[in-house]
Order: sequence, then C-alpha cells, then structure tokens
Amino acid sequence: MYSSPLLPREKVFRDPVHNYIHVEHKVILDLINTTEFQRLRRIKQLGTSSFTFHGAEHTRFTHSLGVYELTRQICNNFRHNYPTKAPGDGLWDDDANRLVALCAALLHDIGHGAYSHTFEHIFGTNHEHITTEILTSPETEVNQVLRAIAPDFPEKVASVIDHTYPNPQVVQMISSQIDADRMDYLLRDAYNTGTKYGLFDVTRILRVMRPYSEGIAFESDGMHAVEDYIICRFQMYQQVYFHPVSRGMEVVLQHLLQRAKYLYEHHQLGELTPTLLVPFFENDFTLHDYLNLDDGVLNTYFIYWREDPDDTLRDLAHRFLDRKPFKSVTYSQETRALIPKMRDLISAAGFDKDYYAALNDSYDLPYDAYDPSSKEPKTQIEIMAEDGSLRELSTLSMLVAAIAGRSTGDERFYFPKEMLAKSDGGLFTPIYQEFQSYIHNGALAFPQRKESTDDDL
Amino acid sequence: MYSSPLLPREKVFRDPVHNYIHVEHKVILDLINTTEFQRLRRIKQLGTSSFTFHGAEHTRFTHSLGVYELTRQICNNFRHNYPTKAPGDGLWDDDANRLVALCAALLHDIGHGAYSHTFEHIFGTNHEHITTEILTSPETEVNQVLRAIAPDFPEKVASVIDHTYPNPQVVQMISSQIDADRMDYLLRDAYNTGTKYGLFDVTRILRVMRPYSEGIAFESDGMHAVEDYIICRFQMYQQVYFHPVSRGMEVVLQHLLQRAKYLYEHHQLGELTPTLLVPFFENDFTLHDYLNLDDGVLNTYFIYWREDPDDTLRDLAHRFLDRKPFKSVTYSQETRALIPKMRDLISAAGFDKDYYAALNDSYDLPYDAYDPSSKEPKTQIEIMAEDGSLRELSTLSMLVAAIAGRSTGDERFYFPKEMLAKSDGGLFTPIYQEFQSYIHNGALAFPQRKESTDDDL
Amino acid sequence: MYSSPLLPREKVFRDPVHNYIHVEHKVILDLINTTEFQRLRRIKQLGTSSFTFHGAEHTRFTHSLGVYELTRQICNNFRHNYPTKAPGDGLWDDDANRLVALCAALLHDIGHGAYSHTFEHIFGTNHEHITTEILTSPETEVNQVLRAIAPDFPEKVASVIDHTYPNPQVVQMISSQIDADRMDYLLRDAYNTGTKYGLFDVTRILRVMRPYSEGIAFESDGMHAVEDYIICRFQMYQQVYFHPVSRGMEVVLQHLLQRAKYLYEHHQLGELTPTLLVPFFENDFTLHDYLNLDDGVLNTYFIYWREDPDDTLRDLAHRFLDRKPFKSVTYSQETRALIPKMRDLISAAGFDKDYYAALNDSYDLPYDAYDPSSKEPKTQIEIMAEDGSLRELSTLSMLVAAIAGRSTGDERFYFPKEMLAKSDGGLFTPIYQEFQSYIHNGALAFPQRKESTDDDL
Amino acid sequence: MYSSPLLPREKVFRDPVHNYIHVEHKVILDLINTTEFQRLRRIKQLGTSSFTFHGAEHTRFTHSLGVYELTRQICNNFRHNYPTKAPGDGLWDDDANRLVALCAALLHDIGHGAYSHTFEHIFGTNHEHITTEILTSPETEVNQVLRAIAPDFPEKVASVIDHTYPNPQVVQMISSQIDADRMDYLLRDAYNTGTKYGLFDVTRILRVMRPYSEGIAFESDGMHAVEDYIICRFQMYQQVYFHPVSRGMEVVLQHLLQRAKYLYEHHQLGELTPTLLVPFFENDFTLHDYLNLDDGVLNTYFIYWREDPDDTLRDLAHRFLDRKPFKSVTYSQETRALIPKMRDLISAAGFDKDYYAALNDSYDLPYDAYDPSSKEPKTQIEIMAEDGSLRELSTLSMLVAAIAGRSTGDERFYFPKEMLAKSDGGLFTPIYQEFQSYIHNGALAFPQRKESTDDDL
Repeated sequence: MYSSPLLPREKVFRDPVHNYIHVEHKVILDLINTTEFQRLRRIKQLGTSSFTFHGAEHTRFTHSLGVYELTRQICNNFRHNYPTKAPGDGLWDDDANRLVALCAALLHDIGHGAYSHTFEHIFGTNHEHITTEILTSPETEVNQVLRAIAPDFPEKVASVIDHTYPNPQVVQMISSQIDADRMDYLLRDAYNTGTKYGLFDVTRILRVMRPYSEGIAFESDGMHAVEDYIICRFQMYQQVYFHPVSRGMEVVLQHLLQRAKYLYEHHQLGELTPTLLVPFFENDFTLHDYLNLDDGVLNTYFIYWREDPDDTLRDLAHRFLDRKPFKSVTYSQETRALIPKMRDLISAAGFDKDYYAALNDSYDLPYDAYDPSSKEPKTQIEIMAEDGSLRELSTLSMLVAAIAGRSTGDERFYFPKEMLAKSDGGLFTPIYQEFQSYIHNGALAFPQRKESTDDDL
Repeated sequence: MYSSPLLPREKVFRDPVHNYIHVEHKVILDLINTTEFQRLRRIKQLGTSSFTFHGAEHTRFTHSLGVYELTRQICNNFRHNYPTKAPGDGLWDDDANRLVALCAALLHDIGHGAYSHTFEHIFGTNHEHITTEILTSPETEVNQVLRAIAPDFPEKVASVIDHTYPNPQVVQMISSQIDADRMDYLLRDAYNTGTKYGLFDVTRILRVMRPYSEGIAFESDGMHAVEDYIICRFQMYQQVYFHPVSRGMEVVLQHLLQRAKYLYEHHQLGELTPTLLVPFFENDFTLHDYLNLDDGVLNTYFIYWREDPDDTLRDLAHRFLDRKPFKSVTYSQETRALIPKMRDLISAAGFDKDYYAALNDSYDLPYDAYDPSSKEPKTQIEIMAEDGSLRELSTLSMLVAAIAGRSTGDERFYFPKEMLAKSDGGLFTPIYQEFQSYIHNGALAFPQRKESTDDDL
Repeated sequence: MYSSPLLPREKVFRDPVHNYIHVEHKVILDLINTTEFQRLRRIKQLGTSSFTFHGAEHTRFTHSLGVYELTRQICNNFRHNYPTKAPGDGLWDDDANRLVALCAALLHDIGHGAYSHTFEHIFGTNHEHITTEILTSPETEVNQVLRAIAPDFPEKVASVIDHTYPNPQVVQMISSQIDADRMDYLLRDAYNTGTKYGLFDVTRILRVMRPYSEGIAFESDGMHAVEDYIICRFQMYQQVYFHPVSRGMEVVLQHLLQRAKYLYEHHQLGELTPTLLVPFFENDFTLHDYLNLDDGVLNTYFIYWREDPDDTLRDLAHRFLDRKPFKSVTYSQETRALIPKMRDLISAAGFDKDYYAALNDSYDLPYDAYDPSSKEPKTQIEIMAEDGSLRELSTLSMLVAAIAGRSTGDERFYFPKEMLAKSDGGLFTPIYQEFQSYIHNGALAFPQRKESTDDDL
Repeated sequence: MYSSPLLPREKVFRDPVHNYIHVEHKVILDLINTTEFQRLRRIKQLGTSSFTFHGAEHTRFTHSLGVYELTRQICNNFRHNYPTKAPGDGLWDDDANRLVALCAALLHDIGHGAYSHTFEHIFGTNHEHITTEILTSPETEVNQVLRAIAPDFPEKVASVIDHTYPNPQVVQMISSQIDADRMDYLLRDAYNTGTKYGLFDVTRILRVMRPYSEGIAFESDGMHAVEDYIICRFQMYQQVYFHPVSRGMEVVLQHLLQRAKYLYEHHQLGELTPTLLVPFFENDFTLHDYLNLDDGVLNTYFIYWREDPDDTLRDLAHRFLDRKPFKSVTYSQETRALIPKMRDLISAAGFDKDYYAALNDSYDLPYDAYDPSSKEPKTQIEIMAEDGSLRELSTLSMLVAAIAGRSTGDERFYFPKEMLAKSDGGLFTPIYQEFQSYIHNGALAFPQRKESTDDDL
C-alpha cells in the first residue's frame, strides 16, 4: 500500500544493545534526520534515575532507534514466516502494514519533553497529544517526511500510537504488555544502569511471536522466555524505576518548577529571564515553543535560579543541580495519620512545608491478566499451543500468577535531609528528635536499603 | 588452627565464569594435582544434558574449581568485614575455619562418578560415601595432602561435607539453599548451555552475605539479588535440568547398564571384556576400582557393546552413543492407568518392554521455607534488617512465596520413537495407531515443546 | 600521612563498566557530592562523537568515578602485594600516597568544560589550569573538602595532576601511557559506543602492575595483555575518536562559536542574551562563571541562535543542533594545493568560506617508546622479567613495534554537503561539478567508508 | 541444482557462541544424527589445551555446528544481497551452491580423531583423507544421507574440503585465511578458555563479505573488523594454541603412544588388551576401526597402562592422566648445541632419554600475503573499494603488515620436571645442578611466564 524507496545500500548504526540498527528505507533515514527527532538526543530516557544509577545517561533518541529496530525484526519475522495467504483475512499483511509499523515505532516517543512526567504535571502539557500533533501538523519536518509517502500517512502512523489503527498486530507491536517499546527500554535501561535485572532472551521472544486474528500470540515453546520477561520487568520496577532516591529528586524538581511558576506569576522572579519557559509560565505556548525545550534548557534556567533572590527557589535549584534529594519514609493506611504532624515539624524547623514536604507514590502492574470486572482491560499475553489454541500466560506460569494483578509500588513521605540531623546545636534539636521519633516508630517496620545510593531511606 | 604455607606467588587459573581462580595456599595446589582430583576432568558435570544442550560439555573439574573460588571470596569477605571479636562467640573465626572451608569446597564432588545418578542406581554405589572415603582413606593422594596439614584435618574436611562440622557458617557455605556449590553450577551451566536463565548478580550476593550465630544471613539491601537467584534456579530446573530429552537419554543409559549387568550375571556378555567394570558387575569393588572409572571408560565399553551379539544390548548401546533418546509423554493420576496398556503395545510391536519402556519423574523444590510440620526442614534463607532482626525470604518476596514449597517436576512415560511411526508398511501399523491414540487423548492437554531439541515430546 | 575517616559502611555505586564503584573514605563521598563534581554529570565524555555513535552519551561524571575505582584497585594491589619495607626506599608507601592518589584520580577531569577542545580554542580557556584552580581556590567546595584533610592537601593532589608530585607511581597511575584514566575511557567508550575495539583484559593488567623505583612496571607474564591494550587503543583512535563525521560536527561547532563571538563583539547578536556566555565573549570571566557552563547551557544558546537574524549564525546553529555535519575529503602534501581553489568554489556557491570550509587534522601516537632525540620523551611501558630486569614494551612485541612512534591520524578538508549536490537546477551546477571533480581526482585514492554513519566521506 | 526438503518447522539448537544454530533442511538434521557426526561429541576440539585452560572442554561436535551456522549466515547474506544476475557469470549461484556449502561446513572435521595431531604422527593416519573417505564410502551413514540428495553429491561435498570444487566462493567460505572454520574456532575457543583475545566483530565481517569472480572479498568499510580478526588470531596463537604447557602434555602423550606401540610390537605389553587400538598397532585398520576411536577410548587404555608392568609406559600414562607435563626451555640456533649434552644428563639422572626428552616447535603464519616467490601461495584477503577495485589487506593495515609473513612460534626442548629439583639428597644432585646451569645460561634471556599454568617454563 504505502511504499518508500529503499536506500541504495542498507545503512547501519552501531548500537550497544542491538549491535546494529538497520535502516533500509529512505523514509526512516529522513525521519531520523528531522529536527524533531534529533531533539530527542537532548532528553534523557530515565529522567532523574541517573541521579541514582549514574550510568543511566541514555536518551530517548537511542531508545527510539531501538524500538524501531525491534519492530523491524518482528516485521521481518512475520513477513518471512507468516505471509498473508489472502488479503483481508485479518492477519499480517506486510505490504499494508510494515511501513506504518516502522514509522510508528520510531516516532512513538517524539512528543516527550524534558522530565516529562513532572513537567506535564506543572504545565498541563501532554506528551501523547503532542506526539500526535508533531505527526500531523504540517509545520513539522516529521509531518513533511511522512506526507511525502501519502497524504493520509501521517494520520495512519498517529492512529497506531493512539491505538485506533485497525490492524491489532501493528498496535500490539508498539503498545501492549510485551511490545517493542517495553522490550527495548528494559534491555537498554539494564545495560546502562549496569543492573542485570532487565536481561531476558529477546531473540527467543521475537522468534516465537506470531500474528493471529486478535493481535500477537506467543508459541508455547517460548513460554518461559515470556515468563522471564515479565519477571525482569517486575524486578526493574522494584529495583530501578521506583527507586526512592530518584523519586526524592523528582519531588525536588516538581517543587522547583512550582516555585518558579508561582514567582513568575507574582512577578517576583529574578532578572535573568528563562526565555524559552515563558510561554509555559503564561500558559500560551505553541508546538514550536514546546520543541525548543529539552533537559539542557531546563537545567540552564535552574543554573539561573541557583542565584535567584528568592530563598526557596535558589535552594531548590541548588538541591536539584547538586543532587541533594529529599529523604523519605514509606507510610501505610495506619501510619498516614502521622503525616500532618510531621509536616508541621518541618515548618517548625524553618522550611516552607508546601515546598519541603511531599507525598509520592509509584505503582505499576507488572502484568495484568484480563479481568472482566475491570473497566479498562489491558491486552493479555496469549500463549499458543501447537494446535492453535490459546491460553492466557498467568494460567500457565506460577510465577506470573504470583504477581499478576498486584501492584508493586509504595507510598512515601518526602522531607529534607536536615530533619534527620542529630542536632543543630540549638533551637531545632528537639524538633528533629520528635520528627525522627515518628520515623522510627511509624514507618515501615522493615525498610530495605537499596543499592546504588548513599541514602538510607 | 590449621595452616598451610602460602605459595611464593599467588597462582591463577583462567576461568570463563569467574575470570580467574586464585590459589594462594600450597595445599590447594597440591590437592588440584592429585590423581583423584584430576580424574574429575573426565566426568561431565551435567551427564546426559549435553545431548540436549550441546554446549554443556564442562566437567566436575571446572565446577569444583569454581566452588572453591566462590568459597574463597566468601571467606575473604567474612575475614575483612566480620573479624571475630572473641574466640568462641559462635561466629566466623577465620583462622580456625578458612582452610577447612576451602578444602571442603574444592573436594565436595570428589566422589562423583561417571553418570553418577544412573550408575549408583544400578550398582549400589553412593558418591557421598565415596567422597568421605577418598578424604579419609590413607591410600589416596588427597588424604595424604590433607593429612600433611594435621592428622585430624581429613576428618574435619569430611565433616563439612556430611554437615557435622560444628561451625554452621562453613557448612552453609558449601551446602545450603544458597551456597557456593549451587551458585557456581547455575552460573556455569548457564554459561555453557548458552541459556540466560542461570544468570544472577553473584557479586552482590557475596557482598551481602554475613555470618550470624546460626549460619549465614543476607543483608536486606541484597534481598532482590537473592530473590533473583531463587527465580534463576527455578528456571534452570524447568528449562535445563528437567529437560525431557536429557531424561530420555538417561532412561536409555539406565536400561543399557541394566542389560549389561544381566548378561554378565548370566554369562552371556560378548567376548570383549569390560575389564574396569567387572568388579562392579561382581559387586566386589575397591575404592581404586571406583577411581578408575570415568565417562570415557563407560563409553568405551558401550562401543564394545555396540557390536555385542545380544540384540537388546547392541541396540541400546547404539541408541546411547548415537543419541537416539526415548520419547515421552507426561502422565497424571488420571492418565496413569493407561500405562500398562501402552507397555503391552510396546511389547506387541516387538520391543522387550522391560528395556524399552520406563517411568521417570523429576522433582525439585526450588526453595523450601521452614515448615514446622516437615520432618526434615531444610535451611531457610534469612534476610537481616539493619537492626539485626531476621525475616525468612518468602515472607518478603511475592515471587519466592509463589514457588516456595511447590515441586516443579513432572512424571513421564518413556518409549521408543518407533512407536510414533505413521506406519511400518505392515503388521505393526495398527499397534502404532492404537498407541498414538492414547497419547493424543490421555497425555497432558498442553504439551510445551522445549527449546534445543529435535524432539516434540 | 594524610587520613580520612572511613564510612561506617562501604558505599557502592552500580557501574556498568566496573560493576561497582566502591567508596570507603568519607572524603571521596564528600568530593562526589560537591557542586563542582556534580557539574560533570552535565558534560559528555566524548563531545561530538555521540553524533556518530549514538550510544556515546556518557559523561565525565561516570568516567571520573571509573578512574577513581581503577586507581583504588591499583592501590589495593600495591598495598597487598608490595607493602613498603622501609620508609623512603622510593617505592610505594601506602599511608603517604593512597589518599592523594584516590583524590587525584577522582578529580583529574574536574576542570573540563562543555565541548572542551573547541571551547578552549575559541575562548582561550585551559582545562588543566582550571582543574588546578578548582582544587586550590578556597572558594570551591572541592577545595574545602580537601583542605579538611590537611592544609597542604589540595596542592598535593594538584601536583599529581600536573606531574610534579614526587612519587612517580602515583603520577603514573593517573597519567602515563597506561593509566587508570586511559583504561577507564577505553573500556567505557567501547561499552557505550557498542564497539568491541576497546575491550582488553583490565583484570590481568591490574594484576601485573608493580611499583619500582622509577614508577610502575608490568610483570612479564602480563605482557600480552598490555600489548592488547595498546592495540585496542590504536583501534579506538582509528575507529571512534578520529571518526570524520564527529570531526565534521566539531568543525560546525567551532565556526558557530566563532561567529557568535564575532557578532557579539560587533554588537550584532540578536536580542536573546546568552547570559552565561557573556563573560567569555568579553574575555573577563571568573572561575564561578566557568563552573556555570555545561553542554546544556551551550545548547540552550544554540537554540536561541537558531532563530538569530544573522544568516550564518542561524544556519550553523541549525546544522549543529539538527546534526548536519560538514563533509570531508582527506588531503596530502600533494593534493593540499587544491584547497584554495576549493575554498573559492565554496564562496562561489554562496557560502562564506571563513565559516563553511575548514582544515582539520587528528593525530595521536598510540604508543611512544622513549626516543633519546625527542625533546619531550613520554613515559615508556616497562616489562619486568622475573629477575627484575626491565625491557621496553616495543622491543618485545612485534605488534607494538609496528605502531610505535607512528602517528595514525589524517588531514581533512571540510565543506558543506551542498557542494556534493548533483545540481541546483541552475546557476551553481557547474560550480558543484568542478568542486566534485577535484574530489574525485585529488583526494585519497582509497577512501574508507566508516561504520555508524550515514555519510560517505 | 541439489535440493533437500525443508523441515516442517525450522529447528534451533541453543549455542553459547552464536545463540542459536538454525537448521532448515532435513539433510542437515539427518547428517547431525549420523553415528559419524555424533562421534565428534567425544573428541575435544583443543586436545591437550584443556590441561592449561581448564574451560576448554568443548568438542569438535559443537565447533562443527558453529561452522555450519556461520556458513549458513554467509549464504543468506550472499543470496539476499548478491543474487546471481545470470547463470554462469562465475559468481554466487545460490541454488547450485548453498546445499554443498552447508554440508561441507558441517562435515569439514568429520575425519578428526582423538588427539589427532599426535595420533597421526604415530600411526600414520591422515584426518583429511579420512574425511573424504567418510563422505564417499558407501558404508557410512553420512554417505547414505548425502547420496540421497544426488549420486554425485558426496563427491561434490568432498571436493569443497579438498579445494577442488569449481566455485571459489564455496571453497573460501570453508577454507581460507578468514573462513567460517577459523571464525568459529577463534570465538569458541576464546569463549571456553575464558580469554578475551579471540573476540572480534563477526557480525560486521559477515556483513561486508561479498562474492567476486575469484572468491570472497571484504568491503572497505569493514576493513578494521578484518584487521581485528587477524590480530585476534595472532594473539590466540601466541597465548593459547602455542602454550608451552599444553605442548608439554602433548610431548608426554606422543611418547606414551610410542612406547605402547613399541611394547606391542615386541610383545611386551601387559595383559590388558587395548582392543580398539590393536588394528592401529598392527597397521591394518579399517574405517570402521578408526570411527570406534575417541578421546575416552584412548584415555581408557591409558588407565590400563597406568598399571602396566613396563616402568616407562606406566609412568608416562600416569603423567598424562594426572597432568604432569614435561617442562621446557626455548632454544635458538646458538643454544641448540647444548641439547645433546642436556639429553645425556637426563639419561644420567635415570631417565630413558628417548622418552623423556623432546624437541617441539610450533609455528603459524598469522596472515600470509601473496608472495610470488612462494611455492604454495595461500589465498590472500582482498579489500574491495567502492569502485570495485581490490587491495590486499596488508597494504592497507600497518598492524597486519607488521605480522604478515612472520612466523610466531618458538622451538622448545622438553624434559622431566625432576631435572629442576634442587637436590635428590644424593647421587643426582650434581647432575641436576649442571642441567640447570645450562638453562640459566643457555636459554632465552627473557622467558615469559604464561597465564593459566602452575609452571614457570
């Protein structure tokens, strides 16, 4: 259906995770060379996690190339092993779908911004909407490249990302419980953090994927590789993504942006203007404004603010740039009642409790089996027997059953490290002591120190 | 207490799993150079598994060096971080224990023979008793080397292996749910089979091990590495150790040895005498006889028997040497009743059912938590909080809880591949058909093809 | 001599290259936590190389931790295996030297700035002088932490970095033909680029290092590991560090900064002020100004300039941010004469030749043996026989001899990709054709396409 | 031309080096299942090297699968990227050549026996002739499988192995300076020994291989990967294959077999008959006899001989089984004259000098460029520029030029370790002293201890 000229000679990019990224189509190379895609080089994949795992300095650029490469390999497998017998039988039709899938894979994160999660929370942006806008707005280079394939091609690619594309195989390649996106980030994050939790047998998983009418299933002789992937994902969430210290940095970042916004709105921001952020402070920004932002731009303004007259802004900027995370304790339904009291003590110790105390929870369902009572059932992982019958993964795997449908995050209360001081040599000592008495009595009985951190809580 | 001169310069052996094996003490080098230890070069670690995973050609020699190396690292950690404050406080006393631990680690498998499990079954040997004998009998070179340290040293080392050594840390280093033995074999078997299941973060586990009065505990910030080890072990059992094709070769081996013994006892064995096996056929063997055996000796006699006049012996020898495993189906309580009928069909097809049909089950408990009602409680894995309190692993880990106390093997019925033939062009065709009808109706509804095999069952 | 309290418990940071970075001394942790050291998180190790090898996104922060860790391991080796017999025998005295070595290792790159090489060229800064200043100026946090050890400690550490520290072992650990710095960057750059060229057996090299009166020698049984390191280094230079496309981006960067400086000096820069760069444009900057700069700050101003009224500045900013490297051809003594003509053609095609043409050479001596006639002899690598006698490496290794004293770079002429166009549909077509005729006749007869690039020259 | 049915579903074998071995054709699976191919499971790839590098326990079976897999990948590349335009243009014609190439790759080592090199020397066998015989003799299973493809197919496959097959690409795939055989063994030996020397970028090399009229060339952008392969090969020879201790074991083996043959011929061999060796002692063996031999058979007879009445045979068998290598010194033209004197001293110390002294040299040319004066020019490695022109590798690579045409082995004199004793407490002490005085004066001035050995010479 859609087609793009092949490059005169396949191009390869050396990649530490997949060895090589193979580019065969001109359209892919052209997309990589757009200004919107090159911007991803300046946005870290894991945000504040690199403050905990120093090796995690990789960007959304490298991740996006990886998702593209895995999708390419899945498509190759499907084309080679499951060529469509007849058009319209609901199964994989390579000609119609391949190019859509490859472009969607490459561009699925194109709308991400600097420190996305936090930034969106403060400024009301939405990276998914922006992704669609980048794909479909005629002002972007990405759109121009896509449109050169066919006038409706940009919308087709966008529809994969918002899950409305009619072919379920293409949608599930890019977004499902076990898709090219998740597989690449687990492998890449494991590689760069240096943890071993994210390693699983991607070659085998790719090999046992097969299209069926409802999407993608996994042949039964790869069941254990799929199981292993689910376990790896579970462990990466527990050990890396939910790390309390990374979240302690995220809390600092959130308060820092909040404070800056407050000061801007009250005309109290210092004289160094954060030009590229102004449209966002004024809630009047264009796509062009959004695409000018990246990690370095935000950090640059944090450097400005590290010398701002406002004590809170200055201090929070310093804490973020110089890695002074807030500390935390977990809390539960029972111990939750202590938090207002602890906030008051933080105030009493001289901190503005609106900026120096926070709740933060992190939850993820490592694998959700279909649940009829659930309102938003996620795609389940289907294992296909030799006779073509399907069984949902958790009915076959003890390990997956153990974690299916169970959230694994925790809820934490964050506060400045200063509250853990033995003494300030004066006034605040009794405040610290009272604060710490709550921690030792009220927090989780069995706190686990985590690795890769100089912080105990 | 015990001491051995240090080598003038530490010696290293290049090792693919641990990079280097470091030898500091003369006694260790002398033990490696004994005839009993060198014999381990000629005994494969995984027996018939290399028929399924062709890379698994490593021997008990390399594994033993690996167990020694991990034990050395644990001892170094204990000496460095937990030097005994006072003698007799029940904790790690390096001077008393180090040399005992190192020798026990190196020698823990010294009594293993060729295809141990099967051989013991047929000839009534016991590799654990033989290990003790090799250590304590004055006729062995191992005993002579050990005795040079102190007259009671051989018995001390032996007592570690039979779990009667008074220091529980030393015993648990070598033999517990998470010991140097299991850690080395999981890593080494994963490396050589090329599977990724056995990989876990051994560096971290070694780092968080610490001695306490009842043995060895694991600091809480390494909990997830320990959890990961348990999962890896679970997966290795499911994917590698219990592989149905390896067991299909073991069944052939068992019947082959049984037939040879029967023929010898009935004076019907061919004229080529399996000299080194004769003492075992006659049930009158010495330690010296035992130490003359290895994989190659048994295989040599199988080559003799591949040309024996007896049809059954000749055929079984061919099946073993040339890798013709028996096929299998799983059975359950319900389908068990079909087996006598299937055995009769095997007879009807012209096979001696005593040698061409077999039941085989494989079970392992991946991790047993303490169970007060159990008669033989295994050591449990204890996680130590910062305050020194202990919690058993499965109370902290959802994943471990999911598999604790659950056996993971299966029960299989083995038979010749010929029974799966479509037709023999004559007489046996209906027999085959009836046989196969039982398989398709009676066996496990969801058979999973496994990797690394050309066999479907 | 100098001492720092040990941490209550050794701290570890997970590292993808060395597995863990171990921190034992409080001073090291305090240095890591300084604002000057945290700044290194925002400066890429390889500058423009990540435009060619997309995985090369790692920073000087992670590299500095790695150099520290290797130095720690060397010190441990020396302390363990070569404890000084008598003070003042000229050999390794751990008490006097260990802490100096560790701090110097950690801080050796502390003065590096964003895109150092190019920045220094344009603005006349010098990262080595700035390193010394950061160590010794009382205004820095680094200095305060160092001074807490002893008043003369900062200068001691600085003297290692400028090679005047009296103990040659310490100096050579940090800076010699085979030092912790080079070993870490080869391993880390190989890991992150995904190339295999930088891999060598670091464990063995560390193991065979030994102190002697003139510095550090390598025992003869590690000779081949040292040889392999030299080859790896040679290959990394050829394949990664000298990659023509990375240099094509560096040329763009250099001209971009030059143009901005020119415009600032002529009051023609647009209205968005690059505040943090102003002191450098005015050649009146403090250490504080310098420490405010990082990759992100420069990139932020490039984003400003991408919309500057000046055509050249705007275009160059676009080329840098959106990865449009200049193309290149090699030239030699013979073909050098063509360059003025080619520059004229670039002008004729509408480009300012001062900003759109450049010469660039890259040279490195992979290993320099001592050369009596040389004015600045580098430290040579000495191999120590068992009898203590020394032999310089290239006298023992055919491979090292082959590359010793030979520079391996090349000289290239850079120009805009547009000059390679087939046609512009009009005026410039004959210019392009003439330009290209020089390339095909005059350049290196056997140009090698390089990997990881979409560029042919 | 030739064709084989495809398997209903591609079969994979897990492989530690190539991840998976893919089998698509029934003929390949059938060949793997022959008795002649399964025999390779019982023959170690590296012979006595596992006495030095304990991990090197892999067999010719796994290596042969690996060579097949690499050849399969090369064929896939050629078919995909260089389909023949016209039949008979001298280039790669997949239909005609693919199956021949795959079978030749799998079977190229089928004629190897136990400890081939030494065995051939003593018994006059020739593994290359035997390979041809196994392929073409109608009595083998291999021949039957091959013949089922076409009557002339066995000879076609054999002609690849003896280099007379008309298509030079097929011949060079299996046998040239850079072929599937060498690539697999370097990678596999490096993996199993645990050394890093044999690692090179095989993916890239496969990618840049291309057929041309005279065989296989390498595209210029992979030149450095090819260079790296040559260096790796050079280093593996120096560090692993030529290791003096492995050769010290080979010398023991050679003398052991020689002595046994002598005793058999003189009717002095003990009463335990080495049945399977008898045809070789009597120089009257069939192919069937040859195929009954393997490492384990020889070792079994060595166990017999370890208790033979003949002192020399008994002692040599013990030295081999229990790893007591002869020691060695290198000698040169100058020091060669000392050897007769040293042999006399060995006699004087009570050893039969015919069995306890030996010369051994090991030479390999790491890469031979074409040399017109050479009588047997080897295939050279050709690098192809973008314009299709060819340049021989060493004209482009400084490193390859450095080692091209230079042999890298050494010549050694072997003797019993006893000669290095300080004293025997009596008669022999002056003999030892004189012997050792020659070593210290006459041998190589700069002996290099090697890794992975407990031996100094």
